[in-house]
Amino acid sequence: MRRQEVSIADIARVAGVSHTTVSRALRQNPLISAGTRKRIQKLADEMGYTPNAIAQSLQTQQSSTIGLVVTSIADPFFGDVVKGVEEVARAAHFSVLLSASYNDPHKATDIIETYQRRRVDGILVASSRIATNYSHRIPHIRIPTVLINAQGELQASQLHWIAVDDHQGAQLAVNHLLQLGHRAIGYLGSRSRPGSNQQRLQGYIDALDQAGIQRQAAWVIQPPCDEASQDEDISVGQNALLDLLDAGVTAVFCYNDMIAIGMLTACHEKGIAVPQDLSIVGFDDIQIASCMAPPLTTIHQPRVELGRLATQVMLDLLSDHPGKSHSLPPSLVLRGSTAPLREQYR
Amino acid sequence: MRRQEVSIADIARVAGVSHTTVSRALRQNPLISAGTRKRIQKLADEMGYTPNAIAQSLQTQQSSTIGLVVTSIADPFFGDVVKGVEEVARAAHFSVLLSASYNDPHKATDIIETYQRRRVDGILVASSRIATNYSHRIPHIRIPTVLINAQGELQASQLHWIAVDDHQGAQLAVNHLLQLGHRAIGYLGSRSRPGSNQQRLQGYIDALDQAGIQRQAAWVIQPPCDEASQDEDISVGQNALLDLLDAGVTAVFCYNDMIAIGMLTACHEKGIAVPQDLSIVGFDDIQIASCMAPPLTTIHQPRVELGRLATQVMLDLLSDHPGKSHSLPPSLVLRGSTAPLREQYR
Repeated sequence: MRRQEVSIADIARVAGVSHTTVSRALRQNPLISAGTRKRIQKLADEMGYTPNAIAQSLQTQQSSTIGLVVTSIADPFFGDVVKGVEEVARAAHFSVLLSASYNDPHKATDIIETYQRRRVDGILVASSRIATNYSHRIPHIRIPTVLINAQGELQASQLHWIAVDDHQGAQLAVNHLLQLGHRAIGYLGSRSRPGSNQQRLQGYIDALDQAGIQRQAAWVIQPPCDEASQDEDISVGQNALLDLLDAGVTAVFCYNDMIAIGMLTACHEKGIAVPQDLSIVGFDDIQIASCMAPPLTTIHQPRVELGRLATQVMLDLLSDHPGKSHSLPPSLVLRGSTAPLREQYR
Repeated sequence: MRRQEVSIADIARVAGVSHTTVSRALRQNPLISAGTRKRIQKLADEMGYTPNAIAQSLQTQQSSTIGLVVTSIADPFFGDVVKGVEEVARAAHFSVLLSASYNDPHKATDIIETYQRRRVDGILVASSRIATNYSHRIPHIRIPTVLINAQGELQASQLHWIAVDDHQGAQLAVNHLLQLGHRAIGYLGSRSRPGSNQQRLQGYIDALDQAGIQRQAAWVIQPPCDEASQDEDISVGQNALLDLLDAGVTAVFCYNDMIAIGMLTACHEKGIAVPQDLSIVGFDDIQIASCMAPPLTTIHQPRVELGRLATQVMLDLLSDHPGKSHSLPPSLVLRGSTAPLREQYR
């Protein structure tokens, strides 16, 4: 069932003209009369002829393709990033190749080598672990590369990046809890994203330090992780609840919304009222965050915008304009999962 | 910043050997000594040489690429389908081009033409509206095509498809509500997915008819829709609640989980207890369904499996094996959003 390719020679045979005439007619060459051009174009349409982009790309040395690597395709965070990439790429007549690394460095290397072999014009990487591994390979890779949300590891390298400021986001979250009167504030992290986790943890630490609060080691839980999946995030949130309550926290800042949602689910199961007994803040502002009961207070990341901007920077690089790395500001979204510390805890 | 391509000629110049020797060495040709092969391979690695897949693909007439069209990238349903596609494609050394149609027939046509021009080996379509529009174009398209979850419109065509049985899923949902004692059961549909919506509506109708229940027109709401987005789905669920309650329903079967979640959110806002005052069933079993309060009873669709199987059928077609269309069975997932009809309503 491999397709039957309709070639210029086929059209020439049916039309009873030369190969050159067909080729010129299809490119609207004025050497061919308007009537013949029209007749050949109609015939080409009827026969299902489409120009061969592969042959064109070999001539131009451009494939008009961007290769995109994400940690996980099914994760709503990356879904929005991919959406932004695809929008801008399509408007510029670029196609997008998509692959997921699932935080596996071997898969990541494999994907990038495939993209090189396929002569993509540029690579976008939205996967923090890939970025870490990838940076060792930079000397061997001559394809323009833009990293999405992986600024932490890359200050010394030549790569371009677009990122939301994780440190600032964490400070927004913790300062919000401080203003509500909480002092024993926990952080529930994610080891499977070392770069952004480190930034968010540091933002948490700095906010508490600036408020003059004596931090306790038991307030911070960062479970060992094999992968960064939604299932795992939910489990992390569910499993950490009792340990954090034992540590005496009255509020928790979670690495992301899925972890916060896991914690919220565990609260429902164990009869712990949110926000009365425990305040919870997430990070990302995935769409489902506003649909939880109570709706989740969280840090908004402009995800679609991240994808759009990264692709725009890539297109700039490909047009020999200087690419510019950007940091996008996060914002606090106040909803129902946080409340003032109750009097009895003060 | 366009990349500097390292060619076989470059390697030959640096190595001080002929073009042919480098070419043979890199293909492990035994005419070249093992030592030279090793030296040339090492040099090629150091110089960052990668074989040109575009040139190879022009020779073989195969691009080792599958073009995938989805309705929306950010929708968790399609995220899982894409995940399954990418897994199977990668294992077979195929790359995946991804584009989203956003239910726009012009975008859809544009995407398919781009895929043709790029000589993809096969096209996977996970978008019901595309399928409807696309079927008119079939005579002009010679690329093997597998449709995902669009069996409704396609019984007469030559396309292959993989689908979850929507009619059966709807019957499972409604029969569950009937067994709980509900009789006034509503259906909240989605006009933006005409194919699967029609199947689910028919399953709902058949289940009620088989139970001998006199259906009322007001029990069925199918709001006019411009697009199929999560935001819109949530709004549909929120906006329909009062009309369905006015119609006297005690249970609602929703077209999908996002619509059910929207309805659940509206119930929380209006103080309507789920499942005590109203039972709600969704469709899809997206991951977040189990995290709602109460967790959502729903119909499970094997989404990753849909993507995997569609890709496997495509690979079979490309290997000249007969492709086989499949219908996958859905299943009922019992959770907390459904309960027996309260005595006072009987």
